[in-house]
This record gives sequence, structure tokens and C-alpha cells, in this order.
Amino acid sequence: MTLYHAEYAWLGPAHVPRIVREGAGRNDPPPGNVPADAGLVSDVLIEVADGRFAAVTPSVRPAPAGAVRLAGLTLPGLANAHSHAFHRALRGRTHAGTGTFWTWRDQMYALAARLDPVSYLALARATYAEMALAGVTCVGEFHYLHHGPDGTPYADPNEMGAALVTAAQLAGIRITLLDTCYLASGVDGAALEAGQRRFGDGDADGWAARVDRMRISAGHAKLGAAIHSVRAVPADQIPTVVGWAAEREAPLHLHLSEQRAENDACVARHGRTPAELLAELGALGPGTTAVHATHLTATDRALLGGAGTGVCLCPTTERDLADGIGPGRALADAGCPLSLGSDSHAVIDLFEEARAVELDERLRSQQRGHFTVDELLCAATVAGHQALGWADAGRIAPGARADLVTVRLDSARTAGVDPAGAVFAATAADVRHVVVDGRVVVKDGEHTDIDVSQALRTAIGALV
Amino acid sequence: MTLYHAEYAWLGPAHVPRIVREGAGRNDPPPGNVPADAGLVSDVLIEVADGRFAAVTPSVRPAPAGAVRLAGLTLPGLANAHSHAFHRALRGRTHAGTGTFWTWRDQMYALAARLDPVSYLALARATYAEMALAGVTCVGEFHYLHHGPDGTPYADPNEMGAALVTAAQLAGIRITLLDTCYLASGVDGAALEAGQRRFGDGDADGWAARVDRMRISAGHAKLGAAIHSVRAVPADQIPTVVGWAAEREAPLHLHLSEQRAENDACVARHGRTPAELLAELGALGPGTTAVHATHLTATDRALLGGAGTGVCLCPTTERDLADGIGPGRALADAGCPLSLGSDSHAVIDLFEEARAVELDERLRSQQRGHFTVDELLCAATVAGHQALGWADAGRIAPGARADLVTVRLDSARTAGVDPAGAVFAATAADVRHVVVDGRVVVKDGEHTDIDVSQALRTAIGALV
Repeated sequence: MTLYHAEYAWLGPAHVPRIVREGAGRNDPPPGNVPADAGLVSDVLIEVADGRFAAVTPSVRPAPAGAVRLAGLTLPGLANAHSHAFHRALRGRTHAGTGTFWTWRDQMYALAARLDPVSYLALARATYAEMALAGVTCVGEFHYLHHGPDGTPYADPNEMGAALVTAAQLAGIRITLLDTCYLASGVDGAALEAGQRRFGDGDADGWAARVDRMRISAGHAKLGAAIHSVRAVPADQIPTVVGWAAEREAPLHLHLSEQRAENDACVARHGRTPAELLAELGALGPGTTAVHATHLTATDRALLGGAGTGVCLCPTTERDLADGIGPGRALADAGCPLSLGSDSHAVIDLFEEARAVELDERLRSQQRGHFTVDELLCAATVAGHQALGWADAGRIAPGARADLVTVRLDSARTAGVDPAGAVFAATAADVRHVVVDGRVVVKDGEHTDIDVSQALRTAIGALV
Repeated sequence: MTLYHAEYAWLGPAHVPRIVREGAGRNDPPPGNVPADAGLVSDVLIEVADGRFAAVTPSVRPAPAGAVRLAGLTLPGLANAHSHAFHRALRGRTHAGTGTFWTWRDQMYALAARLDPVSYLALARATYAEMALAGVTCVGEFHYLHHGPDGTPYADPNEMGAALVTAAQLAGIRITLLDTCYLASGVDGAALEAGQRRFGDGDADGWAARVDRMRISAGHAKLGAAIHSVRAVPADQIPTVVGWAAEREAPLHLHLSEQRAENDACVARHGRTPAELLAELGALGPGTTAVHATHLTATDRALLGGAGTGVCLCPTTERDLADGIGPGRALADAGCPLSLGSDSHAVIDLFEEARAVELDERLRSQQRGHFTVDELLCAATVAGHQALGWADAGRIAPGARADLVTVRLDSARTAGVDPAGAVFAATAADVRHVVVDGRVVVKDGEHTDIDVSQALRTAIGALV
């Protein structure tokens, strides 16, 4: 039994983590009139045993002897619901000249071509360790670098995926490996290009057969599925992936309408938008998370929300890649639980992602106050964990997984800020203490096992 | 004589700091085909004497004995060209409920009403010390809290302004006090509202008479003028302020078209936009900096650029206050030198401001690569200093003021990043070492004189 005594803690949303406004039409009880800071309490005694919360008691003064004091604001574990770990090597390296998402992709493919299981493990370990420093306790890795550069499978055809699972373990965080089906280079089903061959499994049955050989026995990992996009998985192959996930009750993720070109190509080929096509193929629903969902029609939003499909927003990447501002508020109102991802890792800072959901809506609407603090923190914690299949994480409550993220309220950035508004002020650099499944992973701002800076420099230096 | 040896240094733009593209029509030599990293060199020996750079020599290996090693990327001093120091007390405290810029302003006025010279000094000292930690060597304070809450002047009618000058001195940074004329509550010249009375000087002559009593003898401070906005200074009063600044060759700043409502009211009253009105009144030109410039017509942009008017963008505030995305690239192309400000201090991080200029353009245009790294750093350094009247600062060059800002390249955020792209990865938390006019102000990430967190908490705690 370990005792913590938190100066302030946000225990999680008061109601089920459906980020909807009252009357928005979802079946789940809406947050109703719960104030934005309902979950914020002080002097919280937190008892941890066997990796779970045993008891959580606010307003305990003074702290009992032997309790570890957590000065600042303690949050549930943050879930980074959309990650491409290897993109970390591109940070700050893709800004010369002009271009688009598509020219950026060429640079990304050039890096992807250089990775092997050893360098992939080293880079992912360092990247996940950076996430741990930022308070991320669980990552959703959207993984499609399956085979050797020319498409030849490794001796173990899941060696690259296994490297990611090991990397998360070494970094001390949980992972949902979203093994991604990637079969074609366009909506017309055209063959993979040279730089894409290592992503492919021939067809969806080939993908399923390979994934079924993956053995995940470690307690820190789960297996999920992903459809890369309607560009990369032909319509007739999509139901196989959907069925695979449904049968196993595994999370299903997919990139959706990040770029207008994808929508245009899909409409030209199929006479419907990507969301319409996916709805028709049964790919939407509460077990599905659509990533980005930037360029949608009103019909698309209704389809996503009506089915209870989750949406993972990645605002710092959507800025960096010039995707545009997604309709976050409209999607939440339609019934989509929102989660967050740092995606390309131009930035790894879930606070920045969370506030950007609100601030980007402000830029578009020229109005303030679209999301409550409760909603933003919910997206960063319990909703993200749900999107990754960890229904028992993301809240500080008895029985839940014992994840704790403590943010300094005495840095130059957070000093003087009301704890209820800290999500608008804190950065990843303000995370002081991180506990994952009861184990201390970050102490006084340092990773307990890994020299993160050195690990990043070594891993990236070998590749660039 | 002090010797520094910088691992990497960006010495400043290769040409005059006019942020224009080739052929954009300005008189100044354009950057032409200078590559983005022209100013980036390594192993730089920097000699400082009497607060100035005596010599700057790249590629000196090994470092001579006695030189202080600056590991990481060393930049010229950053200029924060638009600040309202007291807004720092609002950080993280204005996000409950819905609203607009105008409802936010009510909260800001409520705080303004509580300040006196003592609390203003304490809060500004702490805020400027936070700026020093972020690498800001010079601040432009847009100051309009002149008198007692009911409008009665203090015994020294410049006591509040003097508090700001002292605050900057205590924090170890330079200041340009932009003493702001604020006379009316709307474009129709309506009398000041209750919460605005302490801003007013009756008329522009009253403003000028008061400002002329201000004595600034300290070497770290300069005096400039500001027209709050076309809302707050009636058209017939504007020429007096313009003339005051021109006579003294002092910088002139003004808020311009931050909100559409200001434009609408101005057009309704004067039959022209704020930029058109200001152009007609002679308020535009190379000595003027227009702050925000968010909602402009093509004519407005041509007027601003044609006159060589500077524009100070404040992207993190423009997000927070739901102002919208200003036309940064178009203004630069029209001939406006760009500078940066943290304005309301929702964030104090000039790196975040600099990259947001590029990233917000990406959000709007769905294209990447609008600004070079050279242009973004120029805005944060030499152009900002020029906008504040410090023509001899903002570059690491012999004869210039000896300001140095060293950014870690070994934090979790910056590790593995190409130094040329650090502006896309670094945060204020990565600033390790700051020298202002030859004096060390920040060492190993700590302010040499002030416990910044404690100073912020004390100053803000007394007000909220």
C-alpha cells in the first residue's frame, strides 16, 4: 500500500465521459449542470495497492504520516490516443521551403524507409519516454511499418510491432498497438508505391492472418486494429478489418478526412464521402475512433455522432501539417466522444493539445468558451483511455488503474494560476511526478529509468 | 571583457531586417536567395565588453581558456514588442462560461480597477522576470493605467509608468514604455466609462503634457507613445500624439483592427476603416507599429505596407481572445516588418509566438512554408527591437548591445532537433542562459535576482 496526499486533484468528470452538451441527443447521461470544476478537490488522500486505487478521500488534513506529498495539481493518467512514434525524428526538420501535407509525407517516407526493428525500438523507446515525462500513461500507436523495406516480412512478421510493445514497457507506459491495415496507394486500389511496400499485407485477410500471430501477453499492452484510411484500404477490404475488431471487441481506429484531396478522390471513386463510405461498410460505432475528422459535411458529422463514433483530434499536428481546423465542438455536440493525440510529435504536450481544441475553435468562430475545462481534461484522460480500450483507466477513483500525473503550480508558467484553469497554462515541462499502474515512472521531472534526452539524441542521430 | 563560446549561434538575418519577399516592392534590400540558416554558425567566440559585443568569431575550435561555454543554440535577445504586464494575473482565470473579447475585457477591467502603484510594480516585476526566463531582453509595455481608479492623478502623475520602468530594471530587462493615450469609450468620442477613467488625460494635449513630465534617465528604458485605438482616441486628437512621437523620433504603437466590431464602428462613424483613417491622419509609417492588424481589407494592407508600418502579431493572445488569424504573410509581402508580442500573457513564450505566425497561416491556407526560420527569428529579435526603438540590439554583431539567449538542445523537447529548426521545437522552459547588455540575468534556467514563481504568486495572490 502506498499513500499519496495531493494538494489539488482533478478526479475525473462527474458523469460518464460522453463529451456532449445537455440535450445533444446521446443515450448516455449528459454532464448536465455539473460545474466545470466539479472534479477538482484539495488535500486528497490517495491509497494505491496492487496497481489500483484502493481509496480516494478529499479534504484530509493534515496528511497522515508516511504519505507522499504531491504538491501541485494531480490528474488522472493522460492518454495519447494517436501516435506515430517514428515521426519524432522529424521534429524541427521539415520546415524548409514550401509545400503541403503531401510533400511532408515524402520526407516522412524517406525516414520510414531507413527503420529496422532495432532502430524502431530505440526511437520508440525514447519517444515514449518523452511521453512519460509529459504525463502520458498510455499511448495508441497507429502502426503500419510492418515489413522489411521491400515488403518482405521479417522472420517474425510482427517483429516491428513487438518492438513497439517492448518500447512502451521500457518507457514505463501502457500501449494499445493499433495494427494498421495498409493495402493500396489510392482510393482506386492502385498498388502500393515503392516507399509504401513495407506497410502492406496483400489483402485484409493477409493482414488479419499476420495480426492473429501477434502474441501480447504483457499486462501493459493491448492489441487493436486500424484501417489506415479509405485511400489505403479498398472498400471491399474494409469489412474484414471491421469484423476482426468486432469479434475481439478490440478498438478500431482510422484516419478520416485529414486532407480535402482524400475526400475529393473518395467522392470521385465511390460517389460518397469517406464518412459515408465507412458508415455504409459498418466501420463507425462506439468501438471506432476516427482520427482528425477535419473536413466533414453536416451529413458526415451526423453519421459519426449518431453512431457514437469517437473522434481523436490532433491539433498540434493539424497545425503543423496545414490540415486545417476540425469541427471539434460540432462533433461533440453530434455525440462523438473526443480524445487527443500528438500524432506526428511535432510537440508532445497533451495540455497544448487540450487547450488547442478550445483555442482553435476560438480562432474560427471569434467566440470564446466552447469547451469546459472538465471536457478538455476528460478528452485528455478517461475518453482517451476508452478510445484505446482501457475502460478502467483515466480517473482517480477506487478500483481504477493507479495512474497519477502531478503538474507543478509553482513554475514560472503556472504560478498564480487557479488550479481549475491550469490546463490553459501548464506545459509538458511542468509535469513533476508520474505514476503508471502504481509504479513511479517520473520523479521530480526526471524519468526513473531512462536519460530521455540522451536516448532521443542517440536514436535520432542514427537515422538523420 | 567576458568571453563566451557558443556551441551554435544564430547571429541575426544576413540582410536588413525587412521581412519581405524578393520583388515585394520595398526599398530595402530583400533577403534574396539567402538560405534559411544563413545566420546559423557553430563554435562561436563572442567577446563582450562594456555591455556590447566587441568581436564575434565563428568556427573557433577549441574554445580558448576562460571562455564560458554556452551549450545549445544561442540567439540574439528576444524583444516582446507588445505587453500589458498586469494581464498576467488573469492567466488561466478567464475560461469559465462562454463569451467574447468584450466579456473578457470586463474581467480585465475588474482587475485593472484593483491596481495601485505598489501592486502594479510587484506584478510587473514578476511578469518581466518571467519574460527574462523566457529569453526576453526588451519589453514594449503598452501602458494606459495612468491615474487613480476614479481618474484622479497620483502626486506624481507618472507614478504608474515609473513603476513599470523600475519593474523592468529589477527584472534585468530593457523597456520601452509606450505611454498610451486613451480618451474615449468609443469611436463617437463618448466619455470614458467608470472602469476606464484611470486611463484618461482629458485630451491629447493633456496626455502630452503629462508624458512630457516623465523623466527617464535609466539606460535600460526608453519612452514611446501609443494611440490605444481608434475607439479610444478621437480622430481630431490623433495628430497630436503622432506629432509628439515624430518630434522626438520615438516609437508610436497602436492597436489596429483586433476585432471586427471596431472596424464596423469606425466605418459607420468615419466612412473609412481604422487603417484608412490612421493613414489619413499621418499615423502610419516606419516609426509606427500596428498591433494585431487582424481584420484588414486589401486597401488596409497596402496602406500599412506602402508606408513601411511595422506590424506586431500576438498569436497566442489572438487565439485566446478569439480575435482570429491575422494576415501575417500578406502584410510582410506588402512591406510591413513583423514583430511579436505576448500581449495578455496567456503564454509568455516568444518561440510559441514565432512558430504560431507560420502555423496559423498553415491552418488558414492549408499550405506549409510561408515564413523561413530566418524571418521568424528576425521578428522575435532585431525587428522587435527596432519596433521598440532599440536599433542597436537584436543581433549578435560587433558594436551591438550584448544580449544573448541560449536555448537547450538537450531537453526532451529539443533533443535530436536540427538547430536550424529549433524555433519549431523549443519552449520558454528550454531557455538556460540570458545575458542583457552584458549582464547575466538568467543562469541555468534560474533568474539571478528573483524567485520568479514566488514573486508571481505573491503579486497575483494580492489581487485575485
